[in-house]
Amino acid sequence: MKLIAREVDADAADLAVMLTEADAKALGIKENDRVRIEANKESAVAVVVISDSFQKVGEICVIDEIMRRLDIKDGDTVEVFFSANPDSVRGIRKKMDNKKLSSDEIRGIVQDIVDSKLSKIEISAWLTALYINGMDIEEIAAFTEAMVDTGDRIEFDRTPVFDFHSMGGVPGNKITPIVVSIVAAAGLMLPKTSSRAISSACGTSDFVETFCNVELDAQTLKMISEEVGGVFAWGGSMNIAPVDDMVIKVEHPLGINPRAQMLASILSKKVAIGATHLLVDIPTGKGTKVPTIEVARAYARDFMDLGEQLGIHIECAITYADQPVGNAIGPKLEARECISILEGAKHPSSVIEKACDLAGIILEMGGIVNGAVKARELLDSGVAHKKFMEIVVAQGGRPDLSSKDLVPGEFVFDVTSSTAGYVHDIDNKNIVSIAKAAGAPSDKGAGILLHRKKGQRVEVGDLLFQIYADNEAKLQRAKDIATRYRPFEIEGMLIKRVTATKVR
Amino acid sequence: MKLIAREVDADAADLAVMLTEADAKALGIKENDRVRIEANKESAVAVVVISDSFQKVGEICVIDEIMRRLDIKDGDTVEVFFSANPDSVRGIRKKMDNKKLSSDEIRGIVQDIVDSKLSKIEISAWLTALYINGMDIEEIAAFTEAMVDTGDRIEFDRTPVFDFHSMGGVPGNKITPIVVSIVAAAGLMLPKTSSRAISSACGTSDFVETFCNVELDAQTLKMISEEVGGVFAWGGSMNIAPVDDMVIKVEHPLGINPRAQMLASILSKKVAIGATHLLVDIPTGKGTKVPTIEVARAYARDFMDLGEQLGIHIECAITYADQPVGNAIGPKLEARECISILEGAKHPSSVIEKACDLAGIILEMGGIVNGAVKARELLDSGVAHKKFMEIVVAQGGRPDLSSKDLVPGEFVFDVTSSTAGYVHDIDNKNIVSIAKAAGAPSDKGAGILLHRKKGQRVEVGDLLFQIYADNEAKLQRAKDIATRYRPFEIEGMLIKRVTATKVR
Repeated sequence: MKLIAREVDADAADLAVMLTEADAKALGIKENDRVRIEANKESAVAVVVISDSFQKVGEICVIDEIMRRLDIKDGDTVEVFFSANPDSVRGIRKKMDNKKLSSDEIRGIVQDIVDSKLSKIEISAWLTALYINGMDIEEIAAFTEAMVDTGDRIEFDRTPVFDFHSMGGVPGNKITPIVVSIVAAAGLMLPKTSSRAISSACGTSDFVETFCNVELDAQTLKMISEEVGGVFAWGGSMNIAPVDDMVIKVEHPLGINPRAQMLASILSKKVAIGATHLLVDIPTGKGTKVPTIEVARAYARDFMDLGEQLGIHIECAITYADQPVGNAIGPKLEARECISILEGAKHPSSVIEKACDLAGIILEMGGIVNGAVKARELLDSGVAHKKFMEIVVAQGGRPDLSSKDLVPGEFVFDVTSSTAGYVHDIDNKNIVSIAKAAGAPSDKGAGILLHRKKGQRVEVGDLLFQIYADNEAKLQRAKDIATRYRPFEIEGMLIKRVTATKVR
Repeated sequence: MKLIAREVDADAADLAVMLTEADAKALGIKENDRVRIEANKESAVAVVVISDSFQKVGEICVIDEIMRRLDIKDGDTVEVFFSANPDSVRGIRKKMDNKKLSSDEIRGIVQDIVDSKLSKIEISAWLTALYINGMDIEEIAAFTEAMVDTGDRIEFDRTPVFDFHSMGGVPGNKITPIVVSIVAAAGLMLPKTSSRAISSACGTSDFVETFCNVELDAQTLKMISEEVGGVFAWGGSMNIAPVDDMVIKVEHPLGINPRAQMLASILSKKVAIGATHLLVDIPTGKGTKVPTIEVARAYARDFMDLGEQLGIHIECAITYADQPVGNAIGPKLEARECISILEGAKHPSSVIEKACDLAGIILEMGGIVNGAVKARELLDSGVAHKKFMEIVVAQGGRPDLSSKDLVPGEFVFDVTSSTAGYVHDIDNKNIVSIAKAAGAPSDKGAGILLHRKKGQRVEVGDLLFQIYADNEAKLQRAKDIATRYRPFEIEGMLIKRVTATKVR
């Protein structure tokens, strides 16, 4: 059937084309069926939404991405045909039936997600089947490679390529720029790509972009990494493992991140930039993705097994995550804390220790003995800060950048203790909820500054934490949530304190 | 945030509201998140699609159903807020984790699907979890009751209420009007609601509507049933177990029908019309929903256990379904075959036998001895035909209706045998594919007429089947598929024939 294409912009993985009920009926198409659209000898398959509100009979609404692929513009005529379910649906069904998938079947599913041939319904079924039935290491390795092959790769002329990944889930984890700066200062190359927050209050890219540009293209990333030794880039601005972004949109409302998907997603980005050595940080604690040390050990084993299959030397570090890392949560607050440590501040020690321990492991992977000590020297001597500033400037930041430039939101609320005792618990999830209510990560000044950490003594009226916001309405919203959730637990007796807790 | 509502019509369970990127950002909303919309002291929760193509900043596209619920019209101002995930998502997660759900949790999920609070992504995850992890009989009973309670009920003044359901999956199964007519002729009441085709070539309502109106409201259905003794209505025109329609839209592209969902869906409609006695036909054979007798027995056990929980007397009949029932597949072709049997035709005997056997079981459930013999008498004597005509007329059909009125499509293609031998197999799925390619069920004249059945001898050039279509293009499409799929398997030796096969 010949139809007039009407261009629509839409971010949805799903909303690919819209037809009137009459045209859908004439084509024998039901809601959620697919059509094949042909023009200029190109073709694309898309899922159909049926509605009479957006186009006339004889017209078809097509998302911009497909318009580009077919090289057509608004008002052009296209040929539209019914298209049967893609073969990859069979692969999804097979995983639903808990059978092992071949590497071709996995590749078919990944390719069809990238090509928008699978609808949100099918992607959701796929993720649910992965969540319930899982994959073995061989399948995950094939999954990783399929994710790599459906995107771009970056090939460095300089080797080895070191990389670092934190599984996340712990708020305030602003160590990445410190780790990269120390490793690069030691003469190794660490081209780090990070993500923005999905469900957290602040991803690495969310705070790094408050002081320099994170949206680098592949060429710039390669150039800076090879010349300066490191970058802190946003992974999303390159076409690396693009399937991940489409999958995240479906994972997000379900609140799941199936193990196979998570592992393949992390490692595909590392394979795509040709990482030869990778350190994975596994933050472990209540209210994170990894609640117990046993779960952390299982992930570590998975990562190392996958590293073997994929030809990457992988080491893992299980880190303490029962409370936020450092004191600051939120873009500008985290940026300020991060930079102040590079400038020489001695607090918060949890950030300094974690950054130096992890950078130290990477240095040792690169053949430098006594890595943690060396890392600390590079930080204390200011050499890491000098390297940090080189990277910042290469990424378009100001050469005179100082931590003092990062001024958090002007609307502030102090939360004080109504009781005396010891801080028994700081709930990661509640801290994140409050920071998000205050506007983080899109409001750059929003967030939380902790004034007490676990194990510390507080008296009545002592400041526990401050909420920052860029506007009054969101501050109010965050205050309401803080009152409801009470992220601090204070007890009069130390007897219940967990002995592993570090007192600061 | 105050926004101007713009009405859109859309059939999608999902496409509930659309926001511009700017407004979504201001509300802190990502794709697939939810908003709560308030107006006139009413509120509705809906899933968000983000696009700048369909409305301006400051506007929100709202589907007609929600417009009605809020009692607003195009151009009215509504208040829009971010809305957290509904609690029912937790229930879905719990089933993903293979835990037993409480009756309240099941009710919450069903209610949120009916209220459009769950997106296609979440409904897909729910169905996938049900498919993989299943439900026990207690959960399915609660599921059934939740589906009943979220829709309307019909209460008959006349009891007992007999009902009949075929699990379907076998093409050409046009027995329903015959069964209903026989049972009503015997003085029992059978208010039968049927469905339209989902993935088959012709549902009962698809062929019944070629000779009378099937879209009855609840009041009319009750009146005709009580006065005449039976109806053949389309279940979709009443608000009975409305969640089913929303779920089908998600099941369809996945090609799954989880056991728990199927059982609850069938039985909810029976509970909603107050059925006291139910006969379930379980067509069993290659290419149907129930491939083997063992699977059929398991379903029969499920139905009877559920009947006990729900207070309905349920019996099951496992019927032969290795090939189509009778010779006709497609709306007008099936209607013609069905009516001709009521008029006294002695062929095809498979249809007559199946209808009389099943009607006989229902008669016995109603205390009539020797049911199958009695059923055959009612059919042969013309009493059932008289009752059939009473129902047809009550449903707005012509009082002089004859099978000759049902004229199939004028475009016909004869498929002949290129080899001599015995018909070893007729593939149900391929027959359905060809009939659908010819235009069934929306083209009423489209379909297939079989001239040979399993076990019969054919010579070279003998007519195997005819394809009917309402237009030439679809006939061509069906011919192409017939050539590719070859639904008949003919072998030279009888030795491979399954002994249970009836030779006709």
